[in-house]
Amino acid sequence: MNTVVSELADAAALCGRITTVLEGFLDDKAQEAAKLGMPPEVTQCLRDFVGVGGKRLRPLLCLTGWQAAGGCGTPEAVVGVAASLEMFHTFCLIHDDVMDDSGSRRGAPTVHRRLALRHGPGRSTSAAERVGAGCAILIGDLALCWSGELLHAAGLTTAQLGAVLPLVDEMRSEVMYGQYLDVTTAGRPTTDVERALRIARYKTAKYTVEHPLHIGAAVAGATPAVREALSAYALPVGEAFQLRDDLLGVFGTPEVTGKPALDDLREGKHTVLAALALQRADREQRRTLDSLLGSPALDAAGAAHLRAILTATGARGEVEDMIQTRRAQALRVLDTAPFPSAATVSLRQLADSALVRAS
Amino acid sequence: MNTVVSELADAAALCGRITTVLEGFLDDKAQEAAKLGMPPEVTQCLRDFVGVGGKRLRPLLCLTGWQAAGGCGTPEAVVGVAASLEMFHTFCLIHDDVMDDSGSRRGAPTVHRRLALRHGPGRSTSAAERVGAGCAILIGDLALCWSGELLHAAGLTTAQLGAVLPLVDEMRSEVMYGQYLDVTTAGRPTTDVERALRIARYKTAKYTVEHPLHIGAAVAGATPAVREALSAYALPVGEAFQLRDDLLGVFGTPEVTGKPALDDLREGKHTVLAALALQRADREQRRTLDSLLGSPALDAAGAAHLRAILTATGARGEVEDMIQTRRAQALRVLDTAPFPSAATVSLRQLADSALVRAS
Repeated sequence: MNTVVSELADAAALCGRITTVLEGFLDDKAQEAAKLGMPPEVTQCLRDFVGVGGKRLRPLLCLTGWQAAGGCGTPEAVVGVAASLEMFHTFCLIHDDVMDDSGSRRGAPTVHRRLALRHGPGRSTSAAERVGAGCAILIGDLALCWSGELLHAAGLTTAQLGAVLPLVDEMRSEVMYGQYLDVTTAGRPTTDVERALRIARYKTAKYTVEHPLHIGAAVAGATPAVREALSAYALPVGEAFQLRDDLLGVFGTPEVTGKPALDDLREGKHTVLAALALQRADREQRRTLDSLLGSPALDAAGAAHLRAILTATGARGEVEDMIQTRRAQALRVLDTAPFPSAATVSLRQLADSALVRAS
Repeated sequence: MNTVVSELADAAALCGRITTVLEGFLDDKAQEAAKLGMPPEVTQCLRDFVGVGGKRLRPLLCLTGWQAAGGCGTPEAVVGVAASLEMFHTFCLIHDDVMDDSGSRRGAPTVHRRLALRHGPGRSTSAAERVGAGCAILIGDLALCWSGELLHAAGLTTAQLGAVLPLVDEMRSEVMYGQYLDVTTAGRPTTDVERALRIARYKTAKYTVEHPLHIGAAVAGATPAVREALSAYALPVGEAFQLRDDLLGVFGTPEVTGKPALDDLREGKHTVLAALALQRADREQRRTLDSLLGSPALDAAGAAHLRAILTATGARGEVEDMIQTRRAQALRVLDTAPFPSAATVSLRQLADSALVRAS
């Protein structure tokens, strides 16, 4: 128990250091922008976004990967790499919110909504929305570029950078492909569970868990055995995470998740939950799912109806079982993985949080 | 004359090599995508986009910068850097078209329109448009990431990469800030000519001309004198280019420019042309400009009316004069610039093309 507490304390301290790096970087960018006569709202939006936080899951996993591969302490360079992952994630979320036209994120208005409001005066609603989306696309683009700058400025040796760059490149491409599948299947969920799991794998398991662990491990010069064990752990845990996310998106409490309660149902995302419900629905349930899942006009009563069907078909229960199975699988990997014990403790905690978290 | 012809022949050969690099890179990416079970349309869209071409202005200027700084021949590494600039530009155009909701580019449907059509079946028009925009945002994001991969894979020495990377970083940030100004001022053009010129400077003069020249020159280890002369040439030529673009966007022939004739007027971009017309308009002209410039409902008759006012106020003529002045200024720089003659010939040609080009 004491070890767990000390791990958590480390995590909080680490989050603080990552925030400091990000804020310092953005302050420099704000000064450059002022010199160019550019609007301060760009860096301000990003500063607010990274300041509010989020779970800092990817940076923490990057640090854990470093530990797992035998890295000691938390040197500046590893913190810099972790901060660059968080900046990359900021880019992902800003673009994701534009694509989904989400209204809130981390309990605050999304970047495109905030900027539509700011540039609203003198414009029609649709023109203001267009400007807001354009601004958010550009701010996301800048966050993507700046994640690269943070990585280059982290102070890695040439050998470390050479090991990390291909992994970062792979991470970027894979998460965007995952998002691409997500976007192109949205609104048309099918019974294809395998396809839904593929989306979960690329969008989350690899992006959120495996790549950050591998990137941190690469900085420490990981052996192939360490890399393989990290993957064997990361993929089931990451899938469990996405499955939990899918459940929270439908059954979660908006005050806790920070996301509106109806968005996932309105978008009709092609999730494992939806695919299983479609497979198991009787004729009448199927008719309801087809007409309400992905309907932009879905209201609270319709959402309650959908939730009842997702539960009654057993889809919700099966997703819970899938999370359990994957968690157990990941924990078994940890029993024999060649990691120092501090890393194992952190990874065990993470697997548990996938099972029980509420946000 | 013979020198000019040989320069042009070199340019064509060079464009061919750049296309080969880009297509080879995208073929590799297509194979990777196939292995991941990802849709082939992502790399196909990019291949079609870079295959259709465009003027390859930035890669050619990168090569010219290399020559200007004393680089000899056209080694693989410089071609690789030039190709990465073209991939970056591909990203810029795809996102630009999403933000402006343009219908065509290079005489073909834009990426987001093409993908909206592809993912249309089974979706409402607005849902299909949303999917098309989401796909294009992601394909643009991938092009941005891949421009970085092309740069890293170009085979530069560590010293060369160290000289080039900060310039690339600066180029990326500046063009996005320029776009940001463009997006946030669109639909609300004012009489502020200075602001319009600032947009032209960041969006075009620095991005299209100065940065590619500097990046190529950096590969050849440019002296400060060469860098300064390149800037002194690039900024006026680049501004002239944007001013020409503004005129072509309003008075050009769509069959030649590849862009619809009404888009610029409908968007109400904050250009020097618009700012000057607003400054010089009498009360009635001003009323027409205020009601039609930036109106999404603008038709061909309204556009003809606007064109007549842009001409009658003398705004069109003054923009032509500004182009002339900037061209002359750039040519004067070339008279004393410390460049080898081949580079000077290319740069002179470019300055001329800003004056007379039709697309």
